[in-house]
Amino acid sequence: MAVGSGELGALHIVNGVRIGVASAGIKKPGRIDTVVFELAEGSSVAGVFTLNAFCAAPVTLSKKHLAAASSRYLLINTGNANAGTGVIGMADAEASCAALAAEVGVTPDQILPFSTGVIGEKLPIEKLVAALPAAVSALSADAWLNAANGIMTTDTRPKATSKQIEIDGRLITITGISKGAGMIKPNMATMLGYVATDAAIAPDVLQHMLDIAADASFNRITIDGDTSTNDSCVLVATGRAGGEQLTIAKGPVYEKLQQVINDVFLELAHAIVRDGEGATKFVAVEVAGANDVSEALKVAYAVAESPLVKTALFASDPNWGRILAAIGRAGVDSLDVSSLTVHLDDVLITENGGRAASYTEAAGAAVMKQAEMSIRINLNRGQHTETVWTTDFSYDYVKINAEYRS
Amino acid sequence: MAVGSGELGALHIVNGVRIGVASAGIKKPGRIDTVVFELAEGSSVAGVFTLNAFCAAPVTLSKKHLAAASSRYLLINTGNANAGTGVIGMADAEASCAALAAEVGVTPDQILPFSTGVIGEKLPIEKLVAALPAAVSALSADAWLNAANGIMTTDTRPKATSKQIEIDGRLITITGISKGAGMIKPNMATMLGYVATDAAIAPDVLQHMLDIAADASFNRITIDGDTSTNDSCVLVATGRAGGEQLTIAKGPVYEKLQQVINDVFLELAHAIVRDGEGATKFVAVEVAGANDVSEALKVAYAVAESPLVKTALFASDPNWGRILAAIGRAGVDSLDVSSLTVHLDDVLITENGGRAASYTEAAGAAVMKQAEMSIRINLNRGQHTETVWTTDFSYDYVKINAEYRS
Repeated sequence: MAVGSGELGALHIVNGVRIGVASAGIKKPGRIDTVVFELAEGSSVAGVFTLNAFCAAPVTLSKKHLAAASSRYLLINTGNANAGTGVIGMADAEASCAALAAEVGVTPDQILPFSTGVIGEKLPIEKLVAALPAAVSALSADAWLNAANGIMTTDTRPKATSKQIEIDGRLITITGISKGAGMIKPNMATMLGYVATDAAIAPDVLQHMLDIAADASFNRITIDGDTSTNDSCVLVATGRAGGEQLTIAKGPVYEKLQQVINDVFLELAHAIVRDGEGATKFVAVEVAGANDVSEALKVAYAVAESPLVKTALFASDPNWGRILAAIGRAGVDSLDVSSLTVHLDDVLITENGGRAASYTEAAGAAVMKQAEMSIRINLNRGQHTETVWTTDFSYDYVKINAEYRS
Repeated sequence: MAVGSGELGALHIVNGVRIGVASAGIKKPGRIDTVVFELAEGSSVAGVFTLNAFCAAPVTLSKKHLAAASSRYLLINTGNANAGTGVIGMADAEASCAALAAEVGVTPDQILPFSTGVIGEKLPIEKLVAALPAAVSALSADAWLNAANGIMTTDTRPKATSKQIEIDGRLITITGISKGAGMIKPNMATMLGYVATDAAIAPDVLQHMLDIAADASFNRITIDGDTSTNDSCVLVATGRAGGEQLTIAKGPVYEKLQQVINDVFLELAHAIVRDGEGATKFVAVEVAGANDVSEALKVAYAVAESPLVKTALFASDPNWGRILAAIGRAGVDSLDVSSLTVHLDDVLITENGGRAASYTEAAGAAVMKQAEMSIRINLNRGQHTETVWTTDFSYDYVKINAEYRS
């Protein structure tokens, strides 16, 4: 059901990062569900996490560990989110860090734990701990695809991308993976995303770069408007490509790195939308002519999350009345509906508060039939533009989510 | 697919109100799609209307007419919403009022027009005008059920209720109808609702009563979070039961009337939810212990509109993790998740940030299997309680909305 080919290009290794996977049998026996990242000593690590008040135990613990020590390992399990699990959940998250720390010889606070899967069930900690030696002994630089496969839940395909640029004569690699297909309206991060570069970047600059990149990518996608309890995204800079460490967030080197990191994040975020639960369409909702970011996003999310717009997208029905109705309820002050325009790709569908004179149902239907399209709204009252990406709402979305636990 | 029997009790006539219906063939030949209400001279009339910025031409015109003159007729058509139709839509709405005014001998501004149906298509005004003589000649006091049938769109059954009370020895009747099954998250009113009483109530008191009643009923329901462009609700007091006119919104007579009007509105609002598109469940989401109304409603709507909660309801799956996740993203400041509780009916499912010790999956599943149930959330931080009503999200919701125009 995913949109687009989903073919992955070469995933370049990142010097200073090794990855090992294993099967702990957390939800299904034999399935790869445990992933360990080893980060070279001296790596800078930055993270962004869900703003959901019911954040999972591992999210709380990762934030604490990130602030307390230099992170050396990421420990990720799927099949169980360890969320809504109270004090026992926190004890389990701590136990998983302690076990990996003992295995590899670091302190527990040098480990960042992450979990994804069903909410509210106890993490089978013994199974997870028992799988750690296998994951550690499998550590290898060339295992990004294994990791992308190992963090999947309802995803139908792995999500990964890799880019290389030259900076001051040095080859810099950025490779990343992500996962997520439902409960997707990230707030500060996606479900899970891990991106590493061998560039040398100071921690505060790296955090700034992550904030910028996540805000323009994972924070601009929605599948069902449901923000997960476990959203987490980590950006690592190992510095193993050599060269001077970047210590300020300006200048040509910063700009070049920020741009390529943004590109990696956007690709990973788009991959999540393309693989949205039951998705048959990949849709960009662009709102231009807004007074500010907030106004543009209000309109974009009202359209992108409207069940009526999403079912019309599924039906390839150019039912632009539903788009207008969603814009109209978005809560924009003193919106003049007669001055805004809506395009489907390049087809003008509404102007002057109604159907455009030039519009034909055939032209609208031709755009809607495509697997990838854009809804372009111009409020014509300001200078701001924002884009969010979303999917349609299909029978399969209902099927997948009605049957998830059974 | 509707929830509950939907059986209607006796619909008492309201002295001073006559109703006539006709078939204009607006969308389908032969279907009753035109309803005219005649209100006795001297009736008080109050209205509340959608806050959607893309409000339909008839909504704009009804608001104008209500302010300009004493309303004597309501003219309602289904099959076409006359929304997103620009200046032509307004001309059509004006033409419909002018035609009915000529037919019955009042001025056009004494007529309130209402339309519901597909958005963005031109109203076939000639067809509507041609049907008016038949509707007028059919005017009769005993036609409330005809009216309830005549205003349906995707509704599967008519919605109406009637109550009688005695005040100062006089029998007072309140009868009302409503319609709506999708694009339901009213903001100031439902899709369409018409309630009349023969009590004598001054216009400003009547408007106050309508605001109170609509806020506690139509403004507390959501099916898909999509606010219509055409939501309108009218309350009429003909005064034909006799007695002194109520001129202040206090005292025992006011309180008695307000209470019965509230009851009528709540029944009509619940009827809309029970007939929600594809609905198999009727669910009350009650949020107690909130600091204020806004906080309670934020949480209630986050849960009631979460696609993941709604698909779990469809599956009768007590997936309380999704309820917690929705509460957690509702945007309540400094929410202490460890101090809140969630019940399904009387079954405690979460406490201390996790699954309740006493909870069993069997007990949760037993509640979820019912066609009618409640999700009761106590934030335990304030004194405020609010309830909203909603439905589940089923295959049929997708089917109905993917095929609506075809």
